[in-house]
Amino acid sequence: MSVLTNPRAERVKAVRALGRRSARQRAGRFVVDGPQGVREVLRFAAHTVVELYAETAALGRHRDLIEAARGADLPVHQCDPAVMAALVDTQHPQGIVAVCRPVDVPVTDALAPGDGFVVVLAHVRDPGNAGTVIRAADAAGARAVILSDESVDIYNPKVVRSTAGSLWHLPIALGGDVPGLIAACQSRGRRVLAADGAGTTLLPDADLSGAHAWLMGNEAWGLDEQIRALADDVVRVPIHGRAESLNLALAATVCMYASADRGTS
Amino acid sequence: MSVLTNPRAERVKAVRALGRRSARQRAGRFVVDGPQGVREVLRFAAHTVVELYAETAALGRHRDLIEAARGADLPVHQCDPAVMAALVDTQHPQGIVAVCRPVDVPVTDALAPGDGFVVVLAHVRDPGNAGTVIRAADAAGARAVILSDESVDIYNPKVVRSTAGSLWHLPIALGGDVPGLIAACQSRGRRVLAADGAGTTLLPDADLSGAHAWLMGNEAWGLDEQIRALADDVVRVPIHGRAESLNLALAATVCMYASADRGTS
Repeated sequence: MSVLTNPRAERVKAVRALGRRSARQRAGRFVVDGPQGVREVLRFAAHTVVELYAETAALGRHRDLIEAARGADLPVHQCDPAVMAALVDTQHPQGIVAVCRPVDVPVTDALAPGDGFVVVLAHVRDPGNAGTVIRAADAAGARAVILSDESVDIYNPKVVRSTAGSLWHLPIALGGDVPGLIAACQSRGRRVLAADGAGTTLLPDADLSGAHAWLMGNEAWGLDEQIRALADDVVRVPIHGRAESLNLALAATVCMYASADRGTS
Repeated sequence: MSVLTNPRAERVKAVRALGRRSARQRAGRFVVDGPQGVREVLRFAAHTVVELYAETAALGRHRDLIEAARGADLPVHQCDPAVMAALVDTQHPQGIVAVCRPVDVPVTDALAPGDGFVVVLAHVRDPGNAGTVIRAADAAGARAVILSDESVDIYNPKVVRSTAGSLWHLPIALGGDVPGLIAACQSRGRRVLAADGAGTTLLPDADLSGAHAWLMGNEAWGLDEQIRALADDVVRVPIHGRAESLNLALAATVCMYASADRGTS
């Protein structure tokens, strides 16, 4: 197997460019950086993997991943550290990278009939928050996650990393304005619960028994009053101490675990 | 009021140095950067504030804070943008900074008799995690937070920022080895619940009725088996989907909110 040694090669530049949203959209590709993500995509969505790059030193360390990739007939390009550093814009490259096709599903698929709950993120902009909520949604047993228009790109490397593999564990749908997404949930029999500090229903008192959707707002400004008015209920996580609020990811996680504990999922 | 304009002045360098743990310990001072933190320390612990620095443009924007500081007879030093940029090592200085004395309390104070729950962080190293857990502990109504030896310094600027003011909302104690802290909780009538993915008790089944302490481990390696064996119970947050785990801050928040909902706090 030949080893890629030229960090300025066109193919290396093309992967590096996938750090930018415009390039990802043009190419229909994104990058998964590091063994945790690569392991999960190979396990749950190997058909979306286009190719792998592995540093020579990482071949032995991640033999299981290399074998899984070869077993799925995926090209594995061996490269030297300089090429690896050029492929991804991270401070500490972890030696293995996969180039992948998107995995998002249509909104209608994410809202397929069923009990339990889904999560709708309205205009969530921070990559770490979005990724963490996707990971928490996975852990709490959400049926799907939907991100509205004007949300962060889930194929942003920081989102991919902070999902810790959950990107491939549950259906994720993209796009649509928030009122349209609320209506889509409701027309499919899901009560929409807006999580917001302005809510009058405290989480312990919320009705989580049937199929429902949690609607989470932007990390800085929450949900507009007009949006809250479209929901079936506006629910507030109780604040027992002197804190002003919880951050988005924490509030979302507490809400989703309440659904997991008390709902019929 | 004279305006400080020399970013190389000794007093400016002395504040800047407080970004380092060694300088904070030597001086017995730390820095609170930005209006949110400054507001909370003035409101809840004004006696710990030594002095304020405010950019000229921020004086009008934060008139309430300046008035509160003057009302408490605290010196307010007006400075220009170059001095503000030299005072703190942040990309976007927010125009107002307070130099403060520590607020931590002795462990015995944090473990004063009472119902409800406290949180013990064992070797938590990441500033954002520690600060977020302190904020969540505040929101969930924890009686106190205790950080063991070898944890991150809570006066690290990143910790201060990520507590969002909760640093001054509840008692925080520092230091002690983890077995000693477990014994201190137990001898004061608090059951110790170690939160760990290796737990056999699922959170919904855990006994949260009496006074207790949540013990949270390091973000990467959790809690050692020997430490878990000292706890009264080892409790696991259920993972319903395919996620491997929740991160420390999310797991801690779910545990603490379970205590808030079901405990006798």
